[in-house]
Amino acid sequence: MNSLTNIDRLSLNQITTNNWSLPEAVEGCVKAEVPWIALWRNKVEETGLAQSARLVREAGLKVSSLCRGGMFPAADAAGRAARIEDNKRAVEEAAELGAKTLVLVCGPSADKDIAEARKMVEDGIEQLVPFAESHGVTLGIEPLHPMYAAERSVIVTLAHANDIAARFKPEQVGVVVDVFHVWWDPDLYPQIARAQGRILGYHVSDWIVPTPDMLLGRGMMGDGVIELRRIREAVEQAGYDGPIEVEIFNQAIWDRPGYEVLAEMKDRYLKHV
Amino acid sequence: MNSLTNIDRLSLNQITTNNWSLPEAVEGCVKAEVPWIALWRNKVEETGLAQSARLVREAGLKVSSLCRGGMFPAADAAGRAARIEDNKRAVEEAAELGAKTLVLVCGPSADKDIAEARKMVEDGIEQLVPFAESHGVTLGIEPLHPMYAAERSVIVTLAHANDIAARFKPEQVGVVVDVFHVWWDPDLYPQIARAQGRILGYHVSDWIVPTPDMLLGRGMMGDGVIELRRIREAVEQAGYDGPIEVEIFNQAIWDRPGYEVLAEMKDRYLKHV
Repeated sequence: MNSLTNIDRLSLNQITTNNWSLPEAVEGCVKAEVPWIALWRNKVEETGLAQSARLVREAGLKVSSLCRGGMFPAADAAGRAARIEDNKRAVEEAAELGAKTLVLVCGPSADKDIAEARKMVEDGIEQLVPFAESHGVTLGIEPLHPMYAAERSVIVTLAHANDIAARFKPEQVGVVVDVFHVWWDPDLYPQIARAQGRILGYHVSDWIVPTPDMLLGRGMMGDGVIELRRIREAVEQAGYDGPIEVEIFNQAIWDRPGYEVLAEMKDRYLKHV
Repeated sequence: MNSLTNIDRLSLNQITTNNWSLPEAVEGCVKAEVPWIALWRNKVEETGLAQSARLVREAGLKVSSLCRGGMFPAADAAGRAARIEDNKRAVEEAAELGAKTLVLVCGPSADKDIAEARKMVEDGIEQLVPFAESHGVTLGIEPLHPMYAAERSVIVTLAHANDIAARFKPEQVGVVVDVFHVWWDPDLYPQIARAQGRILGYHVSDWIVPTPDMLLGRGMMGDGVIELRRIREAVEQAGYDGPIEVEIFNQAIWDRPGYEVLAEMKDRYLKHV
């Protein structure tokens, strides 16, 4: 299996340097010569949408995705309608920022009926698709790890994300493959192959042992047990040649100087991804 | 959906009262009129095998399962052979204790190659089957939650457990359904139906939100988000009418007096399971 020989596809997902503001992250990428960045809505809001778009554009950075839309299930129709409205704002922001993909973290169930919540996700995506398409934004369903099923997303397998995406055109809805969320799945490689032409993003980090925390316990590539190269090659065989986001939720990494994290991230990317 | 009207099928999995020794757990079940108990090997060892078997028998308790065999993958052939030997001891203990099912927690991978570790699990089960069958013990593959894939078991879906079990006769290998491990799975109900005639145990607890800890964060039935009754009815429709183990890893519950935990467990069983 071949290593990557340059960082042309490397993207800093902003969460990896969570202590940095958007202007700091943009400056960090420029200095480290990281060509792509994935933006988070809360960071964009902090800086302002127009200003964020201008900073990224003037820095010559490409935007791999906007994180995140989704969160479709809600206890009542008014709640669900409010989520759709919020998703439309996210689509508009993605379009203005030049992000072709809006990442969907689909949301937890409002009650114990997880099957019903899953229907709400499908309904929400269906409602959002025409608006997103008219803005040139594709919706990327990111299945989360099953340990987040109760708090973040009822969509927890790539098979399920593929099932939903398949009801739409590839330019409308696809999937985002994040190794941290899917590495454990015995059905992973068949589902990556099945996602051919539908993969909108590839996210890397690592699963460290022992896992220090359910939310903030992701590791830097090479520090854990995930077969990063094997998964990348499967994703590439399924036709994906776009940016590779480094997305790490880890308090210890967040507490380090951002420039140091970027330097390590580049090194680990070439060695392990 | 009907509630259970008595505790005839209720089993105390010993881990739920982890601060109790085996004699204390046996006495606790007798006083609380809980008819079944699931034993752990470390507790049996503490008390001694013959003494444990005698105590349980004299108390008139039925043994729903012995926890646990498994842990098949190892870095080399000698390591794997040692695991098989240990599993044979577990089978002998199950037979002497009157447990018809040995629960298999299949083990983590010794390195990054999870596919290879999964083959080691299959090989290990295949090697163990004749010995187990000759002792009248059935092997119950318990798929664990995917968040335990790196540290406890590479078998993390009921589909995968069913796949392996299907290669053997139902009296040799079956599956154990634990709601905590499988509730998130979009393929859960089809896989329960597919396990018809193969379900060797049903374990209950709950998934509490927010989840306080990856290992010790399970809740008492009714305190979380799992559709306990719906899953029980699916398991029953798949032909399972055996004991229902309450298996709760939770430090706060372990720290409470065992009698109080048993009283609450009985109450919650009738109200929520």
